[in-house]
Amino acid sequence: MAKTSEENLKIIPLGGLGEVGRNMMLLEYKNDILIIDMGLRFPEESMPGIDFIIPNISYLKNNKEKNILGVLITHAHYDHIGAIPYITNEIKNEKRKKGKSPYPPFFASALSKGIILKRQEEFSNQEELDITAVKNGDRVKLGPFQVEFFHQNHNIWGNFGLFIETPVGNIVNTSDFKFDENPINDTPTDFKKLNDLGKKGILLLMSDSTGAEEEGHSLSEKLIEKNLEEIFKKAKGRIIAATFSSLLNRIQQLITLSEKYKRKVCIEGYSMRTNIEIAQSLNYLKIKKNLLIKAKDVNNYPDSKVTIICTGAQGEDNAVLMKIANKEHRFLRLKKGDEIIFSSSVVPGNERTVQLLKDEFYRQGAVVYHYKMMDIHAGGHAQKEELKEIINIMKPKFFLPIHGQYSMLSNHKEIAKECGIDEKNIIVTENGSIINLNKDEIFLEKKNVPSSYIMVDGLGVGDVGEVVLRDRQMLSKDGMFVIVAVVDRQLGKVIRSPDIISRGFIYLRESKDLLYQTRKKVIEIIDKAAGSGGAVNWVYVKDEIRNKIGDFLHSKTKRRPIILPVIIEV
Amino acid sequence: MAKTSEENLKIIPLGGLGEVGRNMMLLEYKNDILIIDMGLRFPEESMPGIDFIIPNISYLKNNKEKNILGVLITHAHYDHIGAIPYITNEIKNEKRKKGKSPYPPFFASALSKGIILKRQEEFSNQEELDITAVKNGDRVKLGPFQVEFFHQNHNIWGNFGLFIETPVGNIVNTSDFKFDENPINDTPTDFKKLNDLGKKGILLLMSDSTGAEEEGHSLSEKLIEKNLEEIFKKAKGRIIAATFSSLLNRIQQLITLSEKYKRKVCIEGYSMRTNIEIAQSLNYLKIKKNLLIKAKDVNNYPDSKVTIICTGAQGEDNAVLMKIANKEHRFLRLKKGDEIIFSSSVVPGNERTVQLLKDEFYRQGAVVYHYKMMDIHAGGHAQKEELKEIINIMKPKFFLPIHGQYSMLSNHKEIAKECGIDEKNIIVTENGSIINLNKDEIFLEKKNVPSSYIMVDGLGVGDVGEVVLRDRQMLSKDGMFVIVAVVDRQLGKVIRSPDIISRGFIYLRESKDLLYQTRKKVIEIIDKAAGSGGAVNWVYVKDEIRNKIGDFLHSKTKRRPIILPVIIEV
Repeated sequence: MAKTSEENLKIIPLGGLGEVGRNMMLLEYKNDILIIDMGLRFPEESMPGIDFIIPNISYLKNNKEKNILGVLITHAHYDHIGAIPYITNEIKNEKRKKGKSPYPPFFASALSKGIILKRQEEFSNQEELDITAVKNGDRVKLGPFQVEFFHQNHNIWGNFGLFIETPVGNIVNTSDFKFDENPINDTPTDFKKLNDLGKKGILLLMSDSTGAEEEGHSLSEKLIEKNLEEIFKKAKGRIIAATFSSLLNRIQQLITLSEKYKRKVCIEGYSMRTNIEIAQSLNYLKIKKNLLIKAKDVNNYPDSKVTIICTGAQGEDNAVLMKIANKEHRFLRLKKGDEIIFSSSVVPGNERTVQLLKDEFYRQGAVVYHYKMMDIHAGGHAQKEELKEIINIMKPKFFLPIHGQYSMLSNHKEIAKECGIDEKNIIVTENGSIINLNKDEIFLEKKNVPSSYIMVDGLGVGDVGEVVLRDRQMLSKDGMFVIVAVVDRQLGKVIRSPDIISRGFIYLRESKDLLYQTRKKVIEIIDKAAGSGGAVNWVYVKDEIRNKIGDFLHSKTKRRPIILPVIIEV
Repeated sequence: MAKTSEENLKIIPLGGLGEVGRNMMLLEYKNDILIIDMGLRFPEESMPGIDFIIPNISYLKNNKEKNILGVLITHAHYDHIGAIPYITNEIKNEKRKKGKSPYPPFFASALSKGIILKRQEEFSNQEELDITAVKNGDRVKLGPFQVEFFHQNHNIWGNFGLFIETPVGNIVNTSDFKFDENPINDTPTDFKKLNDLGKKGILLLMSDSTGAEEEGHSLSEKLIEKNLEEIFKKAKGRIIAATFSSLLNRIQQLITLSEKYKRKVCIEGYSMRTNIEIAQSLNYLKIKKNLLIKAKDVNNYPDSKVTIICTGAQGEDNAVLMKIANKEHRFLRLKKGDEIIFSSSVVPGNERTVQLLKDEFYRQGAVVYHYKMMDIHAGGHAQKEELKEIINIMKPKFFLPIHGQYSMLSNHKEIAKECGIDEKNIIVTENGSIINLNKDEIFLEKKNVPSSYIMVDGLGVGDVGEVVLRDRQMLSKDGMFVIVAVVDRQLGKVIRSPDIISRGFIYLRESKDLLYQTRKKVIEIIDKAAGSGGAVNWVYVKDEIRNKIGDFLHSKTKRRPIILPVIIEV
């Protein structure tokens, strides 16, 4: 049986394995730790009120003596950078500070750096991050690791795969990627470079699994552009195109087409405008002079000469598209003949909201195009054929599927097997596991590091746990029912009709008889307990109220509100 | 401008137009009303705790003098029959009772009748329904209407389209349908019959829009069977196939394949078993003797000789598939090598739950097949090509898209236009509208009938309204915060530290300082108001507490729990 050893490289995924999003991984060798990405993910439906979930970094907090060499950022999507402001303060090292950042050094593309620093402005309690902008082919030596950043296509610019020479052998992390021979304002996949890396001998390939359940090859951006152009060619009304604010290459396509078809462009949505400004100032995004117009000026141009590019393609409550649909946008109202383009996939969980939004557009006389009708959106992730290709290029000895739900990781394993990787050399595992790697073997340690969800809700990070969440779920299902009874200690009985406050259960005004009976029962329970003389066990009485009133209300309504008895002794 | 007239036929959709589900429609001529279907639908995410939504029948309750001639049931899916037990008692007519049902007469296929009557057993407060079982080609005269039931393929047997001769002309309601030349245990679409109906001259076609956004033709059940057979041919382990309990023809396919591949079949799930018993007793479903085994006996057979057909393909909490995944099923545990078939589409809103279920199966070593991987599920609804075909067969003068979200109705209108129907002869409208029809024109009345949601929650029908729902949403987001203060009337001040009870907000034990400050602020607010002498305006004081404490908690947490102040004067 494989044995853990000081000489093994330890790979510890803290997020992104067994889920989509929240990507973060540690590479640990002896006392040194290298971090890859710090992402967030969005909550499940079963987590009402939660803003997002971030990686659990207890392992780092419990091992302060270890030396964090640095943080490698693959690209600027929030599932790879979104947790940075929540994590950095926790891994601060004042010793590091020589008039500089107390945080570990970050390495990222110029675009990623720009987007990260812009976001940091919202977190005024943070000290300055030390981010080195790296380019394709740059090499950085960090302790026992030699890192080379290599260009990988995705749907944001400045995305790097990582080639890391470690004391046990070379490992490759693909980052999110797809092979694209016609990317937008970007160099195509450099297969020669990938082959050169492969020839150096890859001990372990860690590869993006997001597309591992999709057959074939990801759609080429060329095709998307062609289809979008069909819409531009025919459109007589305004074009309103919604997409993710981080989907910068799609935004570039929409801008380029607008230029070609002589449409002015209005960008709406704070996050989108910010990203565009950063990408433009760094020369990733190209916009002709005088193309952009303000929302308040849209009506000064003929409908056929206007494109509006905005946020809200997921039906988000406060995004621009929803405001337009609900007639709440300050300047923009829908017009008959508007052509709405949803140029993004629908994130699972958002289907209903997006459907209702589409309905509203049709009701107001617009026409809607979405990715199920025609290929006007391409995902950013390699599909089966590309995943095979990268395995065949890298020819790794060991294989670790990363980034994805467990079903995606499992299917990625099947792909690797088809490519000839020995089943025992493939590890399918989830967050918190400790993967040991040396030149001869890869195996999981029996113990895990903590990897439970850290939920962010408002200003609270990690203070909403199972108990609070379960209460929220119960409250949302059948509401709550507070009973306040005042008991005279001397008389040993309830001295006035108990107050009842309820929310989310039934409409009280229409339930007088139910309330009357409930009060009567509460008085009976308390009087029986308190009138018997001697000390009263109020904990027991409250339990009685909870149980008996709970059963009574359930028998009358088949609902189970949370019952909260308050007894005041006077 | 078109004028309403006693001589017009009025078509009043109470459900199903602008939504998927809850289908119900009235045809009214002078004093007579004919009802088509009484369905339910499932709630949106924004309706926590709600079991389902049913049609609003205020119009019928407000017009008791009208004569309800009967209820035509197209087929036995719950979106067409599910609201029956909630509606019948409301439209009871004791005068009708001559030793018989006080409800209007129902007309349905034998299978629909069986399933409806079985469900009625759960509603012991109901009197007996009077259901006439009708067959393909049967004609029924109801007041001024002559109804002919005609066979339409769908994914349940006993589905009828309706050809209705009315005083203003012939109308056709397609029911849910698809064209299928190779249906399971059923006769194929009878195009000759459809053509014969069309030749009688159709004034109005009302056609199923559910598939109006899908290109081409619905998949043939032959192809589904072929693909399912591929799985059966190769499977070495048990096959666990989950589908809707009402998807009886899919269940037949799985049974037939099990017979062919010498697998015993275990049916798990109450609703599925019930439907199968009814369909088998009526000879729709064919099962060989000794094929079925009980769950407790599954382990007596080799894995390769067992098929389990069960409910839960939508990831429903209490269904069999979830219980198996969670190791909570009394007899069935997952085994490595099990092959799980999800043979149904995923209802929008359920994607995440189904994904998590799939993940769990992979974790336990099973293999999962679902409809996105191969065609092992076909919808029951006509797609664009079939929708064109039925319009071309019926050649209606007027066209009304029914059954579907607004976007589907709108796209169906485009299809009808392509078929040459004049745009002004097509009505796209939603629940509650009053459509007037005569031989020359179709138009909407300006006024509507009530069509808001009637929500069913436990025993309550319609008692959960906007207020209760909004409270549930707020409670689920940030929880609640009850403050109980006891005030001495004489002293005019708070006499003990206020009690605070909170759920779903923060974990109180870890928030001592926040509670301390909150109590202090509450005392300040009350003392200030009560100590000033004279009568105290407690309504105002409570408002003060709600606002000030609300702002205080928000400033500390960025959360806004519902704040409920209780003040007890002693």
